[in-house]
Amino acid sequence: MSMQYKIYKEPELKDPYMIVGLPGIGYVAKLSADYLVKELRAELFEEMYSSSFPPYVIIKKDGTVELLKNEFYYWKDGESKKDLIIFTGNVQPVSPEGQYEVANEVLDRAEKFKVKKLFAMGAYVTGRPVEKPKVYGVATAPELVEEIKRYEVSSMDSGSISGTNGLVFGLAKLRGIQSVCLLSETPGYMDASGHTLADAKSAQALLKVLGKLLDLKIEMEPLEKEARLTEKFVQEIEELERQTEEMRRTTAPPPPPKDIYF
Amino acid sequence: MSMQYKIYKEPELKDPYMIVGLPGIGYVAKLSADYLVKELRAELFEEMYSSSFPPYVIIKKDGTVELLKNEFYYWKDGESKKDLIIFTGNVQPVSPEGQYEVANEVLDRAEKFKVKKLFAMGAYVTGRPVEKPKVYGVATAPELVEEIKRYEVSSMDSGSISGTNGLVFGLAKLRGIQSVCLLSETPGYMDASGHTLADAKSAQALLKVLGKLLDLKIEMEPLEKEARLTEKFVQEIEELERQTEEMRRTTAPPPPPKDIYF
Amino acid sequence: MSMQYKIYKEPELKDPYMIVGLPGIGYVAKLSADYLVKELRAELFEEMYSSSFPPYVIIKKDGTVELLKNEFYYWKDGESKKDLIIFTGNVQPVSPEGQYEVANEVLDRAEKFKVKKLFAMGAYVTGRPVEKPKVYGVATAPELVEEIKRYEVSSMDSGSISGTNGLVFGLAKLRGIQSVCLLSETPGYMDASGHTLADAKSAQALLKVLGKLLDLKIEMEPLEKEARLTEKFVQEIEELERQTEEMRRTTAPPPPPKDIYF
Amino acid sequence: MSMQYKIYKEPELKDPYMIVGLPGIGYVAKLSADYLVKELRAELFEEMYSSSFPPYVIIKKDGTVELLKNEFYYWKDGESKKDLIIFTGNVQPVSPEGQYEVANEVLDRAEKFKVKKLFAMGAYVTGRPVEKPKVYGVATAPELVEEIKRYEVSSMDSGSISGTNGLVFGLAKLRGIQSVCLLSETPGYMDASGHTLADAKSAQALLKVLGKLLDLKIEMEPLEKEARLTEKFVQEIEELERQTEEMRRTTAPPPPPKDIYF
Repeated sequence: MSMQYKIYKEPELKDPYMIVGLPGIGYVAKLSADYLVKELRAELFEEMYSSSFPPYVIIKKDGTVELLKNEFYYWKDGESKKDLIIFTGNVQPVSPEGQYEVANEVLDRAEKFKVKKLFAMGAYVTGRPVEKPKVYGVATAPELVEEIKRYEVSSMDSGSISGTNGLVFGLAKLRGIQSVCLLSETPGYMDASGHTLADAKSAQALLKVLGKLLDLKIEMEPLEKEARLTEKFVQEIEELERQTEEMRRTTAPPPPPKDIYF
Repeated sequence: MSMQYKIYKEPELKDPYMIVGLPGIGYVAKLSADYLVKELRAELFEEMYSSSFPPYVIIKKDGTVELLKNEFYYWKDGESKKDLIIFTGNVQPVSPEGQYEVANEVLDRAEKFKVKKLFAMGAYVTGRPVEKPKVYGVATAPELVEEIKRYEVSSMDSGSISGTNGLVFGLAKLRGIQSVCLLSETPGYMDASGHTLADAKSAQALLKVLGKLLDLKIEMEPLEKEARLTEKFVQEIEELERQTEEMRRTTAPPPPPKDIYF
Repeated sequence: MSMQYKIYKEPELKDPYMIVGLPGIGYVAKLSADYLVKELRAELFEEMYSSSFPPYVIIKKDGTVELLKNEFYYWKDGESKKDLIIFTGNVQPVSPEGQYEVANEVLDRAEKFKVKKLFAMGAYVTGRPVEKPKVYGVATAPELVEEIKRYEVSSMDSGSISGTNGLVFGLAKLRGIQSVCLLSETPGYMDASGHTLADAKSAQALLKVLGKLLDLKIEMEPLEKEARLTEKFVQEIEELERQTEEMRRTTAPPPPPKDIYF
Repeated sequence: MSMQYKIYKEPELKDPYMIVGLPGIGYVAKLSADYLVKELRAELFEEMYSSSFPPYVIIKKDGTVELLKNEFYYWKDGESKKDLIIFTGNVQPVSPEGQYEVANEVLDRAEKFKVKKLFAMGAYVTGRPVEKPKVYGVATAPELVEEIKRYEVSSMDSGSISGTNGLVFGLAKLRGIQSVCLLSETPGYMDASGHTLADAKSAQALLKVLGKLLDLKIEMEPLEKEARLTEKFVQEIEELERQTEEMRRTTAPPPPPKDIYF
């Protein structure tokens, strides 16, 4: 497995918080991270590429190409009390090994920038319609569990958190970095193709809690619009898929000729 | 593949025995190792993490996070005649390569601590109800096969042993470390989701034999209680699963958009 | 993963273009690359082998063996205005990691030879019969998108490109190499065994555009013949497959004996 | 991926031939290699272990353990005209990458011992009963194809050879080592569990040709007995499997708890 990096800037940050939101079920973490980046006008300072990402590239609206990538943004609070690093991207590694590797890359940055607390985001899948999403919290230490309870965060006492967001959160403990994982309720519905639907309501609930935890004011209007766009984008992709559904798909290499000699 | 270690202590041991019990069918090896650790109050001295573990973290009762990990415990016999190293954990590597790598990591410790004999544990799957579990034994040398026969251990003359427990046992031979693998009968039943059930009776039979081989007295009451708890824990997880069964699950990354250009 | 190389020559080229065409859906890219090599009498200067290729070798007409491989050819324009490097081969890596690795190997050559523009080729799968294939283009920069529009190339504004051809194209952007990906319409039909059919008409359309973009004259007659041969070859392989269809196939190692002890 | 070696001896050989026969369809190559080792009383000089082998160990008749391994044997012709290295083992790597790696390890030995010609063995699967197995041959050069035709070897002009035996043969060409692959007809039948049956008749036909090519006299009686034993061994394993067939099998680690938070 190999990594590639593109560093745009070396920001100077004071004991920043780190927020982690890669795409997952309901795009809850991703929508939240993207929204924060946009609202705070956070600045991109590093892109990260891994051979454990899926082997394809994306075509953008303007006809140019975009690679699958992970991104680090920063935002400087005027008073240097809550500088932020936001980690997001358009993909998670495919393989478990890749997920562990990327998680450790993220934590290398967390150590480098002396992150004082890390917030990983994710979805709490209910499997049924969600009227008003509750936000659950898990932490690296009992004191942290107590602390977050004061911010409308429900506790958990069992289960597991999967994927890179969960690994960044968990491996933070190994490195002695205080870390909280916030999971926002979402139905977790997928369409017949196994595609998850973007859940803006869930992301909004998560951001509301995160805003309180970090004492950040976040304007919520735009998120709904953003989510509707994401929703539309996803539906367009699904429409494209439906059109080509009857074709059998192989991701890339044609199947090798079947062998007759062994 | 990458490993991470957390070393708590460098114990001084005199020609210790090593006992190996990672989770497998019926949790026979894992239950036995956990029980020994608890009864002997063995002390944790090293944790080991591998990118070949499954990519998720576990939520504990107190709302904090636990990583998937492998653990080394030690116990010092007062007379230094049977000092012990116990290797266990809450997971096995997913990939074959990972299983070989972890097995070799375990044997690196065995060599470092000059282990005089290694005991790997496992399940002998019968596929039918087991009234009174027999314990089978395989060894790295014919003399050892003869030796263990004197302790109510049945011999075997065919078959194979799979997984990390089996590899630690087998690869010990390559390094010239005397090793025995004890396999205790268990029905091997799994529920519809493919989950194995904890078999305390099987673990108990195994521990009885191991106790004799090591001349250790092991009180059996608590194991039954422990196993009932494990059983309950497993059933709770299964209940959670049943509730969310109708949802399609992808382990972590959302499926990539299906491609239309190649 | 490991690579092996066989270097036949170190050509001296002046700011060459690079053309990339590994096998994919409809063999569009591969047919085009092979045709160019043949028509221009381009010279092989390096072969590349990867452990991420499928584990088999091919038997040639003369009874000798051919390895799966990737190949670099060069062609020198008399006036050194459009020297070419053509990258093709008889296979793509099986794993995503392998596809990323091979793509980066190709770009190492592109940097070494100071490639001024890279053209990746591929198929645009329509899922329905194609009367007269349109050629679509994506690029690494908006100016390039505008430029190629002048050559009967249709723009795209969404979708993704998968496989090694797409990765070479996309990763070129990371290295600051100007790159265009040309995708030619093809039905994308596969037979019951999942085998793609060679689409000469699609390759021809692509070559026509590429010829204009590079100001190269390409005689089209032979391609039709070539494609008919490829078609025939593919049908022969399929016939062999049909004959042996009733046999269950394992790619190579016999299945391990099923285990009864764990 | 990692390799382990156990070297027993450093034989001095004069321009030896190398014979390669890992297990595959019909165990044709493996039966042939084993038979040669036994009949010539060839001596084991190196064992090789790879983390790409399947993760299990085998229980032998005497109750001791055997690892999955690959083996190098040597045999010295009295006149040093046809010294031999025989490469065999009880397993092939599981992954394509592993197969390439092991093949290259074998060729490292071939280069070290200045092997003058390499013979890889394999099965030619017919998919129908075989009365009198024909032996087919493929080679690294046209002269070799001509040469082997003189020894009742049928030529081939298409198809592919899969697995480690085929890769050793093909990659030999890359290193400039003359190499022949002999494929003996076998029905390729497998039982319902996908297990291949040992085909002594096919191995016998192959050995007869190989004996002529190397000018070795090979007594055929014992092979039939050997094959019947192998056959019986395989049937016993199948019987064990049938008894436990109703149980769902996971190769080693218990399935992870299904996740409910993402």
